[in-house]
Amino acid sequence: MIIIAEKINGSIPSMSKAIAEHNEEWILDVARKQDEVLSDQDFIDCCSSVDENEVETMEWMINLIQSVSDKKIAVDSPNPQVCLDCMKFCKRPGMINSVSGEGNKVDLVFPVIADTKWDVMALLCDDTGIPKTAEDRIRVLNNIMAKAKEYGIAESRIHIDPLIEMLCTAEDGIAMVLEVMDYIKEHYPQAHISGAVSNISFNLPYRKIVNQAFTVVCIQHGMDSGIFDPLNRDLRGSIYAAEALTGEDYYCMEYVGAFREGIFGPQDKK
Amino acid sequence: MIIIAEKINGSIPSMSKAIAEHNEEWILDVARKQDEVLSDQDFIDCCSSVDENEVETMEWMINLIQSVSDKKIAVDSPNPQVCLDCMKFCKRPGMINSVSGEGNKVDLVFPVIADTKWDVMALLCDDTGIPKTAEDRIRVLNNIMAKAKEYGIAESRIHIDPLIEMLCTAEDGIAMVLEVMDYIKEHYPQAHISGAVSNISFNLPYRKIVNQAFTVVCIQHGMDSGIFDPLNRDLRGSIYAAEALTGEDYYCMEYVGAFREGIFGPQDKK
Repeated sequence: MIIIAEKINGSIPSMSKAIAEHNEEWILDVARKQDEVLSDQDFIDCCSSVDENEVETMEWMINLIQSVSDKKIAVDSPNPQVCLDCMKFCKRPGMINSVSGEGNKVDLVFPVIADTKWDVMALLCDDTGIPKTAEDRIRVLNNIMAKAKEYGIAESRIHIDPLIEMLCTAEDGIAMVLEVMDYIKEHYPQAHISGAVSNISFNLPYRKIVNQAFTVVCIQHGMDSGIFDPLNRDLRGSIYAAEALTGEDYYCMEYVGAFREGIFGPQDKK
Repeated sequence: MIIIAEKINGSIPSMSKAIAEHNEEWILDVARKQDEVLSDQDFIDCCSSVDENEVETMEWMINLIQSVSDKKIAVDSPNPQVCLDCMKFCKRPGMINSVSGEGNKVDLVFPVIADTKWDVMALLCDDTGIPKTAEDRIRVLNNIMAKAKEYGIAESRIHIDPLIEMLCTAEDGIAMVLEVMDYIKEHYPQAHISGAVSNISFNLPYRKIVNQAFTVVCIQHGMDSGIFDPLNRDLRGSIYAAEALTGEDYYCMEYVGAFREGIFGPQDKK
């Protein structure tokens, strides 16, 4: 599972406050804690969520993260030009988070990253909004993947977010999202299936247990990338357990190893 | 999810001690605690795990349970004649736990329960032991279901345990067990898919997280009955979450209701 660590995001109130107050120690602390439990394949997401001076704010944040971590950065902005402008601040190729079928996002981003080693997150929405059916999301997917092929971007550099919505207003549970995931797995087997896991539990009590259950099911349907809190120990454990259940983790060696490293398990393990 | 509450079982060391010492208060306390979090569709399993005077011991235990609970009893013994002998101690029709393809178990039990309202747990092993392939377990299943039909026992009274084995020595994760579950769901849609969930995590650290993940996956494959600890709050929450993910729980009302009742969630909820 490729983790896109979500905690350095200005849409989180405490982080928004730290950004507004230029509280470097707060951001460094979160960066260090995330770094400690990540692998080299993972990303630290960086989203300022500010309207003015977004690029400058992102530059400051990216430099802070890189002063304590050598993990890849997921440059996160709803404005793809901001993402592109921030690429030069990153010491290593990271991830553009994100493009979608909206406007000219893909045509703006894909040519710039074509001959690089940057990954990209692609959301399956377009100018009509968030499609309500699997069929319509798959249409957006196919358009994006056709463009990727046109620009020579390998499937394996694309993380697809089928768009995870809150369970409490869904009428068929997660059947539709799983249908999209199954389609991705069948038609673009090298692409990563990703998403913002915790959206599923919005407006429900005891969200952690819904997030864990959802992640376990998604892993059975090929999810191998995700935006979540890497410090959520039970979620981390659930991911290792789910991977072992699929048979990917030979004799549960990864599960046991992660437990021994203290990535999950009782808090006093570490 | 039909719960077969597992805590009154002489194979658990503390319960074994209570049985040996005739510690009625211990057994009553466990019975009460389980009763409190069970619904009328659930069962309280009763297994003495003693070799001598098994029927007398079971009678004493069943009476104790029934003095504080009106839940159905799952009469649990490897000896099917003991199960049959204990039926008369039960105030309500319960469950024979268990039969299998071994010896004459089915031919002994099925005619006795045929014209009753008793349920039965059927394990998919036979005189060759625990079959190593899905194909062989399905063969045992089909034999048992043919016998049930012969005796006029409705599918809906049969709980099928596909035999859950420890994950840490499995080479293909749980693919084989899921294949058996999918077959049951397709061919015997009224039968219950059951099993002893916690077997999956044997010999692994932090078993709870493996048990939760496994249960979530099994529910996606039709599991609607299970032998587990009803006082395991996170497991209970995972089951409600998994059922909501399948779309069975309209607008998550069951999930939210169980949380409000204090069946899961932070311990101070109740």
